[in-house]
Amino acid sequence: MKILVILGHPDQLSFNHAIASVICESLRADGHSIMFHDLYAEGFDPVLTKEEIPEDGFIPDSIARHCRELQAADGIVIIHPNWWGQPPALLKGWIDRVIRPGIAYRFDEGDSGEGIPVGLLKARTAVVFNTSNTPDEREVAVFGDPLEMIWRRCIFDLCGVGTFCRRTFNVIITSTLAQRRHWLNEAHDIVVDLFSEPGLENTGPLD
Amino acid sequence: MKILVILGHPDQLSFNHAIASVICESLRADGHSIMFHDLYAEGFDPVLTKEEIPEDGFIPDSIARHCRELQAADGIVIIHPNWWGQPPALLKGWIDRVIRPGIAYRFDEGDSGEGIPVGLLKARTAVVFNTSNTPDEREVAVFGDPLEMIWRRCIFDLCGVGTFCRRTFNVIITSTLAQRRHWLNEAHDIVVDLFSEPGLENTGPLD
Repeated sequence: MKILVILGHPDQLSFNHAIASVICESLRADGHSIMFHDLYAEGFDPVLTKEEIPEDGFIPDSIARHCRELQAADGIVIIHPNWWGQPPALLKGWIDRVIRPGIAYRFDEGDSGEGIPVGLLKARTAVVFNTSNTPDEREVAVFGDPLEMIWRRCIFDLCGVGTFCRRTFNVIITSTLAQRRHWLNEAHDIVVDLFSEPGLENTGPLD
Repeated sequence: MKILVILGHPDQLSFNHAIASVICESLRADGHSIMFHDLYAEGFDPVLTKEEIPEDGFIPDSIARHCRELQAADGIVIIHPNWWGQPPALLKGWIDRVIRPGIAYRFDEGDSGEGIPVGLLKARTAVVFNTSNTPDEREVAVFGDPLEMIWRRCIFDLCGVGTFCRRTFNVIITSTLAQRRHWLNEAHDIVVDLFSEPGLENTGPLD
């Protein structure tokens, strides 16, 4: 499978980077083809211009390349910290610019954008890994966990990606090395399970 | 009152710009002092660096100026379109970089960031104006309206701003000129009411 892995964290020594490394290695070891972007390291420009807004608007080559990868992906993995119940601005800009009309969704004829869009992505599975310093109970009870709605409902449901999985590792700032090692193993298991093709593992004589 | 007005939309001819103009004019006419930023027009850089993350990290002068205005504000007005249940990346970057520890919130002694922060903003009132092409019912039922959680709970509650008001104008793309005129009047009324100082209007003899 072709899997797109998008990382949005400014610190190369962050736990987010460790998660991304483990995921890319695990998926490559399983024979998948990985398209990986460390948006900070690549100096991605997150600012959507007004010229890019229309479906037939002007798209710079660098963004068009991102769009082609998104279209080609059989699976999508996103990794970022929870900043104010949202991704970092840099990753929000990847959403704004790459998850475009005509690429990830379209409106039916006669619908100028007020109706219900049709998802266009080929990917059947998306997984989001988050890091946070807020425990799950407080995130849900006090903040309402907007990242769950953003990724599951606003983005992947709308773009036609049927299987969605999200795992938040918390609390990072007080975690031990052993805890973080355990989380990396968990990240490995999640992506290997999600992107295994059914039937491939079972090589018994009756199959 | 000193009122900070932040606008995040790429098109100078947008309805978001019209809302911002009406609000600034209305508040100035009422004697308020306005600090206004059209983030796109100013070329605001939305990318938080790792050096800025610690409370005592290095802050560029341009960001420090934004922080001082946020601290000085008695009221805050935010205007932006709903893009994927979130603000545009450019405005998300203003949140990431300006709503800082030590400026907008702090952690108690002995709390390294895993606990419950204390809000520091002087502003007592914040109002968010959004534009959208999704009707309210669909935004709530299908998407869960993450912007409500983001602005009310994740940001202004956390930073100690007690009064929060949000108004989404929709559906923009199919709206008539008369409808948009009505919405601008509504935006005028909302800010004038919210930022009127109690007692000032009533000049009757018994007061």
